Parts: sequence; C-alpha cells; structure tokens
Amino acid sequence: MRYFKSDNTAAVCPEILAAIAAANAGVAPAYGTDRWSETLDDVFGRFFETEVRVFAVSSGTAANSLALATFCPPWGTVLCHAESHIERDECGAPEFFTGGAKLSLIEGAGAKFGAAELRARLDWFEPHVHGVQPRALSITQATERGAVYTPAEIRALADIAHGRGMAVHMDGARFANALVAQGVSPAELSWKAGVDVLSFGVIKNGGMNAEAVVFFDPARVADFEFRRKRAGQLACKGRYAAVQLATYVESGLWRRNAERANGLAARIAAAAPSLLSVPFETNQVFMRLGAERIEALSREFAFYPWGPAGSGEARFVCSWDTPDADVDALCAALQNLR
Amino acid sequence: MRYFKSDNTAAVCPEILAAIAAANAGVAPAYGTDRWSETLDDVFGRFFETEVRVFAVSSGTAANSLALATFCPPWGTVLCHAESHIERDECGAPEFFTGGAKLSLIEGAGAKFGAAELRARLDWFEPHVHGVQPRALSITQATERGAVYTPAEIRALADIAHGRGMAVHMDGARFANALVAQGVSPAELSWKAGVDVLSFGVIKNGGMNAEAVVFFDPARVADFEFRRKRAGQLACKGRYAAVQLATYVESGLWRRNAERANGLAARIAAAAPSLLSVPFETNQVFMRLGAERIEALSREFAFYPWGPAGSGEARFVCSWDTPDADVDALCAALQNLR
Amino acid sequence: MRYFKSDNTAAVCPEILAAIAAANAGVAPAYGTDRWSETLDDVFGRFFETEVRVFAVSSGTAANSLALATFCPPWGTVLCHAESHIERDECGAPEFFTGGAKLSLIEGAGAKFGAAELRARLDWFEPHVHGVQPRALSITQATERGAVYTPAEIRALADIAHGRGMAVHMDGARFANALVAQGVSPAELSWKAGVDVLSFGVIKNGGMNAEAVVFFDPARVADFEFRRKRAGQLACKGRYAAVQLATYVESGLWRRNAERANGLAARIAAAAPSLLSVPFETNQVFMRLGAERIEALSREFAFYPWGPAGSGEARFVCSWDTPDADVDALCAALQNLR
Amino acid sequence: MRYFKSDNTAAVCPEILAAIAAANAGVAPAYGTDRWSETLDDVFGRFFETEVRVFAVSSGTAANSLALATFCPPWGTVLCHAESHIERDECGAPEFFTGGAKLSLIEGAGAKFGAAELRARLDWFEPHVHGVQPRALSITQATERGAVYTPAEIRALADIAHGRGMAVHMDGARFANALVAQGVSPAELSWKAGVDVLSFGVIKNGGMNAEAVVFFDPARVADFEFRRKRAGQLACKGRYAAVQLATYVESGLWRRNAERANGLAARIAAAAPSLLSVPFETNQVFMRLGAERIEALSREFAFYPWGPAGSGEARFVCSWDTPDADVDALCAALQNLR
Repeated sequence: MRYFKSDNTAAVCPEILAAIAAANAGVAPAYGTDRWSETLDDVFGRFFETEVRVFAVSSGTAANSLALATFCPPWGTVLCHAESHIERDECGAPEFFTGGAKLSLIEGAGAKFGAAELRARLDWFEPHVHGVQPRALSITQATERGAVYTPAEIRALADIAHGRGMAVHMDGARFANALVAQGVSPAELSWKAGVDVLSFGVIKNGGMNAEAVVFFDPARVADFEFRRKRAGQLACKGRYAAVQLATYVESGLWRRNAERANGLAARIAAAAPSLLSVPFETNQVFMRLGAERIEALSREFAFYPWGPAGSGEARFVCSWDTPDADVDALCAALQNLR
Repeated sequence: MRYFKSDNTAAVCPEILAAIAAANAGVAPAYGTDRWSETLDDVFGRFFETEVRVFAVSSGTAANSLALATFCPPWGTVLCHAESHIERDECGAPEFFTGGAKLSLIEGAGAKFGAAELRARLDWFEPHVHGVQPRALSITQATERGAVYTPAEIRALADIAHGRGMAVHMDGARFANALVAQGVSPAELSWKAGVDVLSFGVIKNGGMNAEAVVFFDPARVADFEFRRKRAGQLACKGRYAAVQLATYVESGLWRRNAERANGLAARIAAAAPSLLSVPFETNQVFMRLGAERIEALSREFAFYPWGPAGSGEARFVCSWDTPDADVDALCAALQNLR
Repeated sequence: MRYFKSDNTAAVCPEILAAIAAANAGVAPAYGTDRWSETLDDVFGRFFETEVRVFAVSSGTAANSLALATFCPPWGTVLCHAESHIERDECGAPEFFTGGAKLSLIEGAGAKFGAAELRARLDWFEPHVHGVQPRALSITQATERGAVYTPAEIRALADIAHGRGMAVHMDGARFANALVAQGVSPAELSWKAGVDVLSFGVIKNGGMNAEAVVFFDPARVADFEFRRKRAGQLACKGRYAAVQLATYVESGLWRRNAERANGLAARIAAAAPSLLSVPFETNQVFMRLGAERIEALSREFAFYPWGPAGSGEARFVCSWDTPDADVDALCAALQNLR
Repeated sequence: MRYFKSDNTAAVCPEILAAIAAANAGVAPAYGTDRWSETLDDVFGRFFETEVRVFAVSSGTAANSLALATFCPPWGTVLCHAESHIERDECGAPEFFTGGAKLSLIEGAGAKFGAAELRARLDWFEPHVHGVQPRALSITQATERGAVYTPAEIRALADIAHGRGMAVHMDGARFANALVAQGVSPAELSWKAGVDVLSFGVIKNGGMNAEAVVFFDPARVADFEFRRKRAGQLACKGRYAAVQLATYVESGLWRRNAERANGLAARIAAAAPSLLSVPFETNQVFMRLGAERIEALSREFAFYPWGPAGSGEARFVCSWDTPDADVDALCAALQNLR
C-alpha cells in the first residue's frame, strides 16, 4: 500500500536519529538539567529572534493542553475552531489539564476563522459568574484542513483576544509547513503577530517523540514547569528529547522536510485541481471524490475518507519521507479517474 | 566527577538504541497500531507467564499515576509509604490524574512496610462518606531505600488490600533490580503475589523514554486507554516506545543490566559495611557518613546527601553503565575514610 | 417595579416555611441521618410510584453536576442542548464535577431537540481513544424556552441513549411546571419514559434552598454519596433541606404552585399571542417585541431581554407568588402596545 | 437520650428563624444581588473593624475548600494538622476543589501545632518541580480537640507562612467559641494576627445552613466568585443565607450562643477534672473514661468515643441549646463514676 494517511506515520529522519546517538555517551544530569536541555532557550531564541523559554514534552496533545492550562483557569474557556485537534482528537485533554475549563467552538471554512467570527462568538460571553470566561484563543497553524493563517490574520485575532484579556495559543503541529508555505520568518508567524505560546511540532516533520512548548513571555513559565512535572511530561533522561528539538531547528531540517512534504502534496493537488474540496496550501490535500472513486483508490492507496459519513471527501497527507514513486502513482491514478 | 547520583543519568544501552534504529524504516501506523506496539501483550505475556495487557507511557510518573487513576476514584485514597516516589517526587501527579484522590502515608524502615503497619493504617478509615475510602495500595519494588519486597511479603499485603476491595499497584521503577536481587521470576514477584497492575521501569535500567504499564487483569484496561490518550501519553509514533520495551524484556537486557548495577553497588556496600545506614539489597547504597566526610567525598564524586538536613547520610546509586573505574575509586575512597 | 425576571426571585411559600419551623425542635442527628432525611426515599417513592433513592443538595447546579458526574467519566461527554442551563449558566460546573468531561451541544427550536438531532450528533463520535465518548444525555424539563418534552419524546431519546450505553439525565428545575402543563404523572414523565436520574427542582416553585436528586436505579448511588459529601453538598443540619423536599411533594404544593405560575403565564401569552416568539407551554413567555417596545415596558416591568443583542426578544416568567395585579398590568400593557 | 454528640445536631436558634421569616416577603433579586447579600460586606466589616469581602456558602466543607482553592494551585500543598477537619472529615473536598493539591500533615497535642512544628514540616519542601509547593497554611479555631490558638500563636505561624509565600486560612467552624473563650475581638483573632481568609462558622452555633467565607484581602475574590458558582454554592435565593449570617453577627447571637455552649461544657469539665484527656478550653470536653465507663454512660447519654479503637476516650460537646437538665444529669453521672 502506498501511504497517505498522515505525516505521523513517517519514520524519524536520519539526522535526528544520528543526533540522538551522538548524545548517547556517558552520564547526563536528569530531568532537564543536561546540557542539551539547558541550551534550548538559546537555540530557539535564535530561531525566533527573541528571548524565549522552551520546554520539551512527549506529544502534541501534552504540548497543547499544558500550554492552555497555564493560561486558562478552570472557570475559563478556550475559543477554538470546531474542527480543531484540541476539540476533536485529544479525548478531552485540555479539559483534563485545565481542571475542567471549556472549549467554545467557532465554525469557518478551511478549519479557520477570522476576526468577525471570533467577535461574534465572544459576544456570547458576559462578565458575570454564571458563565465561563474567555481566557485563551487557540488557532492551528497549519489548520486541520491544510490552510494557513497569515501574520496579518493572526494579528487581527490576537488584538481582539488580548483586548479581552485572553492569551493567544498556536497549535503548531505543522508550524514548519505553514512557515514554508508562506515564506515568512518564525518570528513573523508567532510573537510578532501576537502569539503568546506556541506548541511547536517536531514529530510529524521528522522527529521521534518530542514537541516544544515555546513561551514568548516568561510570566507563566513557573506554573507551566510544575504542571509539566505533575503531568508526567518531564523526561527523566531529558537529553533525548532536547537533542531532537535542537537538531530540528538548528540544522534547517524543519525547512528541508517541510519543503519536501509541501512540494509532494502540491503535485497531488495539481494532478486533479478540479477535485479539490479545500484550497491547497501546505502538505494536506482534500478532494471531493465520491464513494466510488474513494473505493477504487483504496485498493492501492491508504488514506482517510474525511468529514461526515457519505461526504465523499478524502484526505491525502505527504510527509518528509513519502516516496516520490508513491506520489507519482497517486497523481497518475487521480488523472485517470473518471 | 564520578557520578553516583542516580541511575536515571545513565545513557541508553546500545541494544536499545540499535533496536530503535532498526525500527526506523518506512511508514508505521500511528498511535499504537504499529506492529511493535501490537505485539507487546505477547512479549510481556511470555515474560510474565500469563495473559497481560501492556501499554507504553513516557515516564515513570505517568505510569504510576495513570495506573492508580484507573483503580482509585476521586473520593478514594492510595495507601503508600511516606517516602514513596508517588508521594515525594511526582509533584502531586497521582492527585492530578485521579481527580483529587488522596495518598495516605505509612511509615517503615527501608521505605518499606509490612502487614501490621498496613492494617494499623487501614484502621483509621471508616466506611462512611465523611472520609476518603482506601481503594489502592501502592508498594515500591525496589523501595526508595533500596529494599525489596519478597513474594511472601507482597502476598501478605495484597491479601489485606484485596480483602478491603483495594487494588494492588507496584511501582516497579527498579523492578529488574529487585528481580535480580531475589532470584525469583517476574511472575512470582507480580501477579502470583497479588499485584494487579505494575509500573514496569525500563528507563533507569537502559531504556530511553518508555515505561510499561502492565495489567494482569483486563477489566480496567478500557478506562486506562482513554486516560492515557487524554493525558498526552499515547505516542503518535508508537513504534519507538514499543521497541524499547520489547527489546528490554526479550533480549534479557533487563537481567544483564540489573545484575551489573546491583553488582557494582554491592562492591560499594562491601567497601565500608559499617557505614551502611540501611541494609544493602539492590543498586542503591545508603551510608551514614557525617557532614565532613560527605564534603570530602563530594570533591571527586557526585552523589546526593539523603534524608533531612543534617542527617549526615548519603546515597550512591549504580546503573548499568557506571564505569568500573568509578566504583574502584569510590571503594578506595570509602576505605580510606577515617 | 412589577417583577417578571425569573421564578427564582419568588419568596418561599408559607407551607414550606411552616414545615421548617415545625422541624426546628430539639436535636436531630446530623448529615442526613435525621428522620426527615431518612424518609425521603419513601416519600418520593410514593410520588414516583417506584423505588427511588433521593438526595438533597443546595442548588440546581449542584444537582445537575453531581448527577452527571455519577454517570459520565472524565473522558466522556454529555450531550445536551446548546441553550441548556448546564452549558450556559453554570460556569462550567459539569466540567468541574466530572473531572473535565465535555458537553457536546445540539441545536433545536424551543431549546429542545428530537431523535433525529440526537442521532446526527452521535454520528460524530467514534469508539476510539482519540475522542471523548458519549456517556450521558441531559434534557431539560421544561426547557430554557418553556417547552416540554412529552413522555413519547423522552422515550425516543432515551432509547437511542441507552442503545449507546449512555445514561439519561433530566434537568427538572421546572419539572412541576412540565407535569402540570401535560397532565401526566411524575412516573410517566421520568422513569417510565427512560430517565435514569432526575434533578428535581423545588426552589423555583416555592422552596428555599434544597433540590432533590432522584435516582431510579440504585447502582450508582454509593458513588454519588461520596461525591456529594466531597462537594460540600451534604448538609450538616439535614432536616431543614429534607423537610422542604418532603413538604413539596407530599402536600401537593408542587402542583398548586405550578398551576398558578403556568396559569398566570398563560394569561400573558394570551394577551398578545401574535407577539409570541416561541409557542407557549409552561410558566415562561417569550415575545418578539423589538427594542422600542422593550424599552417602553421596562419602565414599569422588570424582565430580561432574551437572545443575542439586538434580537428584540423578551422573556417574562411567572412564579407561584407573582401578584395577579402585576399580571393584569402586564396584559394591559401588552394589549396597548402598538 | 441526652445528646452530647456534636453541636451540629442542635436546632436553629429562634432569632435566626425569625429573621428568615421576616425576609420572606415578595420578590428579591437572585444569586446574591438581594439587599441582604449586598450588605454582608458592611455588616462583617463592622464586626471585623476592617474592610472585608464576605460570601455565603452552604456548608463548612464548601467554605474551607473554596477558600483553599482560591489560594493553593493544583501543584501546591496545604499544611494542616493531621486531625484537622479538612484532612479527616471532608472526604477529600480540598483535593477536589483545588484540582488535586495535597494536604501535608503536622502532628501536635490538642490538634494544634506551633511555630517549631510548622518550620520542621516546611523543611521537607524544596523549591523544585519534583515536589508540591507549600502555598497555604490552614489552622482550626477552635481545634478538633477544643483548643484555641491565641493571637500571638497565630501571628507566629502566619509570619512563617507569609515568609514562604503561603496564605493563611482559618477554619473557624467554632470561631465564636474561640472568641468567647479568649475574650479577644474578632479582629484580633483574625486579620490582625495574620489570617488572610476565614471560614466563619454559623451553623453549629445557631444557624441553619449558611457559613461565611471572609476575605481580608480582596485580591483573590474574583477567582473565588467563579469557583463558588461553579461549585453549585451560589444560592439562587440568596437572601435566606445572607440573613442568617447578618443576624448572627449583628445581633450578638454569636456571643450569646457561644457563651452558653462554652459555659455548659465548662460545668462538665469541672465535674470530673481528673478525667480530662485534653485541657478544657471551649465547648468540647474530652475525657479518658475507659471502655467500661463509656458503656455505662452510653445508656443515658449519646456521645462519641474518640481516637483510635480502644483508646477509652470520649468526647462531649455542648451547643447553644443543650438543655441545662442534660448537663446536670451528665455532671452527676460523671461525679458518680468510680
């Protein structure tokens, strides 16, 4: 089977495996006091062109939930898209980590929303004790539908959020794909646009089992550190996580891998542009194929039908190590569809 | 500096790193549906000579807390030793994962307690709604003071616990060291003695970042699986955790590494037996040295003073890869102490 | 000002105050072991024509949340209407009491939904660990828009819920108003239609500060009792809550008071039927008046504008002790509106 | 049976019942916006001779837990006596309301501890992420053994706590009894001695079902108010709670009732001073009677044996409405004991 189910089925890229092996010599102090962990702030500071505090965790779900719990009290709510990963795919992790805060959902094409939708949703909340209070905004970059938020779009949302006393969280499970797609700098797509805390994804784009939580403001960091430990997310042998994160940003792997994934997906999108159900932007391709064609393609290709049952939609995802031959085959198959 | 602070500062043993590299080829289904994850039940079933359900998590804290949350309701309490890791060193993780259950503490030399102490502590609880209800017993193998529980000792505690409707959890962060020290089988030291769920430690004894939670009764497994996901502890690229666990038990690494660690520690204990503050049993050595000798040794050796300030006690831990030369040097230094 | 804001602004009806005074003689055992508390099961058993277990709590929010927490695990979700009290007006209490379960919202006119809407919402959930699992259905009787669910409607919803392993909770803050409006028995509107647990409202309809949680199946009662205590909802002097609940159902107050409230509201609805924005059914009247007429009426009458800003809608609620003269005046004012 | 089990079995004193009845006229705005609730800050401000913020809740457990949750983060711990109500008698409520914070226990005669014991316990905590952090101190006034803390004793503890960044909570379930016993002012026994938040008990000393949470510093009040609502502790018909609290402090009931309860208990203590197992100070009397005499007295008197099984100790509690004749009878019985 040729595999287009997700970028999280990819292997670890060789540079990261090599860096892990290189770090595997002799003792290293435990619990994030090793030299790899201790340089993460500097490494990511250079990457983001500002002072940051960076923490490794073992999964995107942990990154998102711990970041949100740091900013949203139990009686608060996180505004996010109805199709967002934190709402749909984390089994209530944000509710668990926050001690029972709510997620308040916003609709919008491309799993994306704009200032008008955010303002309309905020109108529902009143500053009294009967309802939860909006305390965080979470946007996904790139979105669950492969779309990106531009720096200007983020800024518009962040200004509204900050004006209401809300923090801005970015779920950047595919942050590198969004960077590459837009040709902007990490700074422009994060703190310069108003992001307060970023779940910086590494695993999908070549990492093994470490994601970074990046704070652009150190005020809440102490609280975060206690929460991370308490959640079983402070690795005992911290060097193996830290070296993944450092290698990923320092070596330019983030860019090379995302460029490859986005480029392969672009070829798929270009093979049958009239079938696209959502505009193509990063490394995910959504097509409206219909049940029959989905079934036909499923004989050779592994991919997910998408949306509600009977939608006839399908998703194809490319990763850093999707074989060219698999993409060739899928393009050909799409072109041959009637 | 020669390093005796902890076994969690050790590197990953080469066989495990090699197994990770070997697993790093091509795509693998995500979230524990890869072929490495799917064979864990069989691999551990052979190891424990019974049917088991096994789950990988990223840390010992997560293993302990998720296991306990599966058995102890929010209005329950976990009976454990006052010096146990879950009480002292996890920043309240069990309270977090259980939704606010209590830990009820028991004292005892060697960070260990027996049937009499357990019964006396249980006498405090009444079956009414005013107090939390004992729902889990957690014992540590080997204990925070390096002691082991024998199968008979576990059985005595488990019978009391089961008679009160409590589950029996074993924090086996150093389970291999306890196995080797006693020369008994994994089955004898777990389910045959009454253990219901085991946090099976791999990291300290040669692993990288995966621990196993082993259920000897499948009844609570569904609940556990939702909790694991919700806690951000279900790895997206599951093969890298699963292969660590499988390699550890299948290849006999657990035994070889623990034998080496215990053996090195035995040499240290033998170098100054009159200084031992706790009987030596596994890979940790506790000595009453006094402030002056602690200071003197600290120039060449890294280790932790132990106990309350001014106790004059120190802990030396050996791992699978502590250099022989370091142990030689420590033994010599201890023998030269006046 | 003539007051139509809510039925929770009413006084306590004299019979209940008298019953409290009558209970205030000498000592009574504490924490629900007094003779008033101990007869609640029998009193409510006769009322519901079946065996029940009944518990007093201090508020509707506590009743709803404790009932839901008893049936819905932290990794579960409660399906309910988007306008329901548990979603809008309890500041996240269900999330708090459940340990972070979700509420999954369903839309529908009259703050009500039917089998088709429930089925469609359930289609979103898959039986895997990535998403929360539907474990409870909560419906409101009468709804936040004054509508009622008939026994047949409840049965249709309950069958779907039970078929998915979900419990059925009824938020009966205005249960008596719904009973009276339909002329059916308490049994017909609860357990005979498939309700597993009922928050039985007393406060709005003449009580002081006690609501009842009624279990039609005793299986979860032990868990509930620990949760109630742990939530600070087990009254120390239990007789004063119990006597309110017993008096309310035994004396027929529930019926007399609800009949009066519904009857007064019916007069208001009849005064300007063309303005009704929602069909009239119980003791709440919703009218589309427009901003100007709302402002005009606000000089003499206290009531809530309803819905999003600018909707021009208003809500008038009658209680057991709304003065006839106030209703006369409101009817006249509505008839004089241009 | 003559009843000495607890002061929570007493009736409501007539003045409070009369005040409730007087407040029961016509409509009153809901959820704490009625005129009784809105004057509580002033009423209690006069009582405490300083600006305060006061909130009604339905139980002492709720008062304690909500107050602690406002000051102690989930990764914090509350230092308290091992026999305290929050540890022994609230089924884990503080853990629930705080989101899983710990209670760290201190021993001491009379269910009391001093500066030395507090300092020794604090020595266990290190300012790192591996352990919970001390964030609140909770002391009980009067203690579970009837003892009082003097203003100077409170000040000594509060200085240590504040020096460590901890808040000081007082569980004042029997605050009035402690005031009367010491002849000091409410201010001297609270904020002037360093108390930050007080659970001010009303129920045991003549109230029905309302306790006050008194904040001497308004900084955390907003958080508290959301938590109270979310816990189902914001009464819909708020006047009935508020009028209890106001009447209790304004009319001097607190003093009159506590003086009577303490006075009756003093007679019991004086009847058999040689049997006292704990020095007598407030309205609880502890005596070491032995099993035989406990059994003999139990034929005529209802009271609790105290301490672990076989201790031979008994507790007698007097309330504001314990009959003189009952005290006469108990005194006579005690004097006749051999």
